Order: sequence, then structure tokens, then C-alpha cells
Amino acid sequence: MKLIGNAIVGQSGGPTAAINATLVGVLRGARCARADGTIEKIYGMRNGVEGLLREDLIDLTSFIDNKDDEKTLTNTPAAALGSCRKKLSPVGEDSEQYEKIISIFKKYNIRYFFYIGGNDSMDTVAKLSKYTNECGYEMRLIGVPKTIDNDLYVTDHTPGFGSAAKYIATMTQEILRDCAVYTVKAVTIIEIMGRDTGWLTAASAIGRSVTGYAPDYIYLPETNFDDEKFISDVKKALEVHPNVVIAVSEGVHYADGRELGAINSTVDVFGHKQLAGSAKTLEALVKEKIGCKVRSIELNLCQRCASHIASLTDINESLAVGEAAVKAAVGGVSRVMMIFRRSDENGYSSTVEYASIDDIANKIKYVPKEYINEEENNITDEFIEYLKPLISGEVDIEYVGGLPKHYIF
Amino acid sequence: MKLIGNAIVGQSGGPTAAINATLVGVLRGARCARADGTIEKIYGMRNGVEGLLREDLIDLTSFIDNKDDEKTLTNTPAAALGSCRKKLSPVGEDSEQYEKIISIFKKYNIRYFFYIGGNDSMDTVAKLSKYTNECGYEMRLIGVPKTIDNDLYVTDHTPGFGSAAKYIATMTQEILRDCAVYTVKAVTIIEIMGRDTGWLTAASAIGRSVTGYAPDYIYLPETNFDDEKFISDVKKALEVHPNVVIAVSEGVHYADGRELGAINSTVDVFGHKQLAGSAKTLEALVKEKIGCKVRSIELNLCQRCASHIASLTDINESLAVGEAAVKAAVGGVSRVMMIFRRSDENGYSSTVEYASIDDIANKIKYVPKEYINEEENNITDEFIEYLKPLISGEVDIEYVGGLPKHYIF
Repeated sequence: MKLIGNAIVGQSGGPTAAINATLVGVLRGARCARADGTIEKIYGMRNGVEGLLREDLIDLTSFIDNKDDEKTLTNTPAAALGSCRKKLSPVGEDSEQYEKIISIFKKYNIRYFFYIGGNDSMDTVAKLSKYTNECGYEMRLIGVPKTIDNDLYVTDHTPGFGSAAKYIATMTQEILRDCAVYTVKAVTIIEIMGRDTGWLTAASAIGRSVTGYAPDYIYLPETNFDDEKFISDVKKALEVHPNVVIAVSEGVHYADGRELGAINSTVDVFGHKQLAGSAKTLEALVKEKIGCKVRSIELNLCQRCASHIASLTDINESLAVGEAAVKAAVGGVSRVMMIFRRSDENGYSSTVEYASIDDIANKIKYVPKEYINEEENNITDEFIEYLKPLISGEVDIEYVGGLPKHYIF
Repeated sequence: MKLIGNAIVGQSGGPTAAINATLVGVLRGARCARADGTIEKIYGMRNGVEGLLREDLIDLTSFIDNKDDEKTLTNTPAAALGSCRKKLSPVGEDSEQYEKIISIFKKYNIRYFFYIGGNDSMDTVAKLSKYTNECGYEMRLIGVPKTIDNDLYVTDHTPGFGSAAKYIATMTQEILRDCAVYTVKAVTIIEIMGRDTGWLTAASAIGRSVTGYAPDYIYLPETNFDDEKFISDVKKALEVHPNVVIAVSEGVHYADGRELGAINSTVDVFGHKQLAGSAKTLEALVKEKIGCKVRSIELNLCQRCASHIASLTDINESLAVGEAAVKAAVGGVSRVMMIFRRSDENGYSSTVEYASIDDIANKIKYVPKEYINEEENNITDEFIEYLKPLISGEVDIEYVGGLPKHYIF
């Protein structure tokens, strides 16, 4: 059933190196739909639903006609439309908020809603779907996944994960080379993002299969950390070679649930509690129990915004998932999140499909047991096989004056 | 005067993304000298003079004939031969050490000595030059500069600096994009290497001229830091936009010499003193005096080993300086460090020359006054013009399975 009207697109949650590729995908989809006479105009919300609520919209229709900037926007890190962390109240509460949104939808004749984001953003799509349905306003709402964390249900992986994983895997290789130059016994601990899940930290291992080098140990939040086992692991590795490298998730915790990053909190000169982070805590532990040289490195924001070394597979899939979302919506689909279905027959391939948003929102997909070794201090070859195609391929980045070119709205 | 014999090459000090390019340059030079019948064999010292003293040498002559691996070694980060921090005793003391070295030189008929390194490494070249001269052992010794810090005298800049600067400048741009997505007032502080000098931190500013975006403020160890001025700077910037980004050198200090990174030291759960680092100290200061969201990012080792985004200018010059060192030595030159002479007429160009090692060893070149603004919270356009050509050009990195290919001896 043909639904004619305007579309709106927003970005939400933590930035990634691929979220603008998905925006470009949505805009490409809108271009086709405009040619079909289904979508007339496409608006962008500044800062996701935050901007929607304050009617801070930007008309992207002219951008569609200007293909010149597509490539630059595709390779620009972070959310070019801005982002937010806003979660809507449950439907039924704060009716003023929902009435405001629907009045804006009506004012701009918005019939298509595309929201690119992670877990919380899918919650927004689910709630708006429920509300517009209940009040009989005909529109189609689609969630387009995005998160470096790779922790969304149903989909094989998430757009943005492959690029973050590629930066982490590359940087780990380069750090391994750097750490190998001295003969003095030294332990280097790399802290990688992942409060709840260890997908990104596990990515540090991929060099094992590609270059033959990988961190000595990898600790994920899916397992319980044990100080004694850790020290025994490190001592064992130091007997083999002087330069031990360890990758650890920010969210690793003991069996009783205490997070390592919070346990070693210190107090600054003003009396504020500073969380040390999991790597700093392990640094202190190695210093105390082994006494050798030890250093910690936090990859921090760099791992989510390093577009200059994005995965081509990730960027292409991120474009595809955005374009497919518009196609699906125009075809009558609503209240879904787009997902990747994977096939490893005759090499890796993926297809874009969709699944009910209610099966996905607010759930967390953990690294499964079969991807973690029995000793719980490393990952298995099965994970390596899972990850390899996702980091493959390099993007042809445009440079101006020695720096990657970025697009700014 | 033709001096026929063997050569030895070593790498020393902190690794860089370009030190292996210089090694390849030396090997290329040795290839020519071998064709000339001057240099017969070329050895590598494992871990610099540390390896020399324990006679841990590797015959690199076969590598010369195998051009296939040259490109991979050129783009491999860190010191492929290993490195050390060893400083020789003054000539006249510890004669056993010097006798050991000269006996190895004699045993392998070493007549050419190439040492790729920074300040301390030039000291090694100066001492060995003095010693071999005093004991009448004919040989030619040349220091080939390398340091991300760019703090060597006489030379316009140092190999390795351009690549580190390119990573810092690129990452700063990507962090700026990342920080810009939210509407909540937030301060992000990036800590960049540089204990004594601010060359690398200043590189974070280059986006200003290339993309139009740069950190709001930049603080270098060449100036005296003042808490009150800093807080007033930050408040001023927060009035203009919500996302303030600051770049700070690890070595910034107060007028009385106390380093910010050491002042906010805390004690871990085991009672060890942990240095907070300059960015963490500023994070605490912003939290106390302004109270907005604040975060610190330490670029850490990544800035010196990120070969995947090396500067083509830097890599080409690093190759050239290595090759020129061998040519100079074969031509009769000794006891010098190779340097870059720069010309900005008709665009940037550089030539490789040499200067007396005694004018260079153990001295530090600071960022000059004309590169720092009057308020001492940013850098000038003159610095931008100085830096721009040094980060320009991208290296064609070989990837295997999604990861940069590295060469390991």
C-alpha cells in the first residue's frame, strides 16, 4: 500500500565510524523513493529525538541531489546530525511529550521515521511505533542498528563494530611491535571499550590468525576475573618472552560482581573519587605481585571514531542497511529493526533483513561461551573466523592537506 | 679515501613509525656501496649497543638482495632490530666496555657504524667516535636522527615526527567530530607525548588551517601553566560552544617547575603512588572549578607506533636520510649526524646534509617563542606553516586479512 509523505531520519547513542555511512544509505534510499513519488522530502533531526522535540530539523532533500558530498559524509566519523542519549517515557506517561512529537509529524507530514542507533534507540522506535499506532496516525518506523559494541540481538553483527574492531586489531598489532623492542621484562595492558560485553576486546586477538601475533591474554566481562589466576597467567607468559601484552574489557569484574575499574578508585587533590579503569587496576596488581615494569593504555574514544582505518565491509554494509530500511518502509514494513543475516558458504556474505523491534530493544547479546576458551583468559578460533570478514577491506579515504576530509552539516 | 670493510647498523631509543624506513634507507645505501666494492657485509645489532656488547648480531646482507620485503619493513612500526636505552660510560671510564666493542669491530671487520636514534643515541655515536679515534682504529661513525619528539638541534625536523604528528592531527580531528555530537556542556582533554617539548602537542592544531577545526586551547611545556588562567580560558570557550576540546603536553608545569602530571598523584589500593598524568589533573581541576562533564584521553603509545597512518613525506625523508648516511660515510664523512635542511621557496623541499655530532648530542630544541601565541594557550600560524608539509601525503600500506602487513626479523 503506497504511503505518500515525508521522511525523517535521526542518529542516536554513542558515535561510530560507520553511522554516517548508514545516514548516506538512508538518503540514497530516499532518493529512489523520491523518484517513485513515495517520499517527497527527507528531514534530519538534530541530536535525535532531542532535536525532534524542539523542532530542530534540517531539510536534507537538497543533499540527496548533490552526490559529490556522499563519499565524504560516508567516511566522516561520529554522528553528523548530532546525537542524544534521550529515552522517551513509557507510552501512557508524559503524554505531552508524545503529543508534541505527533504534532510535529503532522506539521511536516512525516510518514517515515528512520532512527539509526543502538539498544536505547531501538526502545525509542518501539515506543513511537506503539504510540502512533494507538492514536491511528499512519506512519512507518524503522530502527537501523548501529553500535560498536556488537551487542544487539537477532542481527549477526552491528554496523560500526567492524570498523572499531579493525582499529583495535590494527592498533594492537602496532602496540605489539612497539612493546617488543626492549629486552627488559614488561607488561602492557590495553583497556578496550565494553561495559557489558567483550566483543571489541576479543577483536584484539585477530592478529593471531592473520599475522601470527596476538596479546598473551584476553579478559572479557562475560567471565569472572580472578586476581590469583591472572598473576599466575602473567608469570607464565613472562617466562616465555619479556614483553607481555594483555587486552582487557573496561567492564571486567570479580565473581561477586565488583568491577575492576571501580575497585581501585582513587581520590584526586580536590577529594573527588576517580575511577581508575580496569587496566589501571591491573597495572597496580602487576606492580604489587610481580614488580616488573608495567604500563596501561586506554584506547578510549579513538576506537569508536577512527574512520581513517574503517573496515570496507563495515562501511558497505552500513550503507546497505540504511538503503534497505527505506526500501522496506516504502514497501509497507514498520516497527522493525533491520538486521544482517550471514552466510559463510562460498566465503562470507550478508543479506539485510528485518526483525520485530520488540525482540531486540533493551536486550544485550553477550559473547557466547564457544567463543571463550576454557581457561577464560583468551578467545577461541571460532571467534576469529566469525570476526575476520567483518574487518576486511580498506576504505579509500580522501585526504586534504594531509588530513582526512570530513563533512559537516 | 676508500675504506673497505663491513658495516653495522642499530636502532636505539623510543620506537617510531619511521625508524624502520631509515633502516631500509641504510640497507639501500649499503647495497650501492656493495656494488662499489666498499662495504662487503652489513650487520644489524639486536637492541642497539646492548646487542653489540653481547655480540648479538644479525647478518642483513641477504636482506639487501631481497627487495620484496623492503616495502613491508619500511611500513612496519617500531624498531625491527630491537632497541635499547643504554648510554655508554664517558670515554676513559669503564675501559672494559669499550675494549669489548672494539674487539667485536675488529672481529667482524666493522669499518662503518650507523646508529639510528634520538638524543641519547647521538651521545653513543659521539663517544664511540672519540674512542675509536683515540685508539687509532679507522672507522666512520654516523648518527641518523629519529625521534617523534622533534627536539634535536640543527636539523629542521626529525624523521618520525611527521608520522606521529599526522596520527595526532588526524585523531584530534576525529575526536573533535565525536565530541561535537551531544548538546551537553563537556570538556575533553587530550594528553599528548612531550615531556620537555611541545612539538607533538602543537600538531593537534593543524586542522585549524586544513579543515577549519582545532582544539580550543593548546598548552605546552615551553610555557608556565596557570590554573586560574586555564579555568578562565575554558569558561570562555564554554560560552561559545558546548564541546570544548583541549590538547595538553604530558610535561606541562607550573612556574615553580612542578609538573601537573605529578602533582595529582594518587595512591592505589596497594599503596603505590600513581602519577595521574597532566590530562587527569586537568580533568580534576575542571570537575572542581566548573563542574561540567569532563573526560581525558591519553594518546599514549599509539601516537608513536601508528604506521597505518604514517606521513608519506616523513617516510620518504626517513628512507633518504638512511641512504644518505651510507653515501656520506663511504665518501669519507664521520662523527656527524645527518640533518634536514629545508627550503620553502616554490613549495616545500628538503635536502639531507650533516652536522658535527658534538653540536647535537644531549641538547634539546624547544618550540620557539614565535610558534606560541601571546596568551600562551595556543600556537601561531607560523607553526602551522612549518608543520603542514611534514604531515603531507599518505603511504600505500599493504593489508593482509584486514590488517597492515608487518616485517619481523
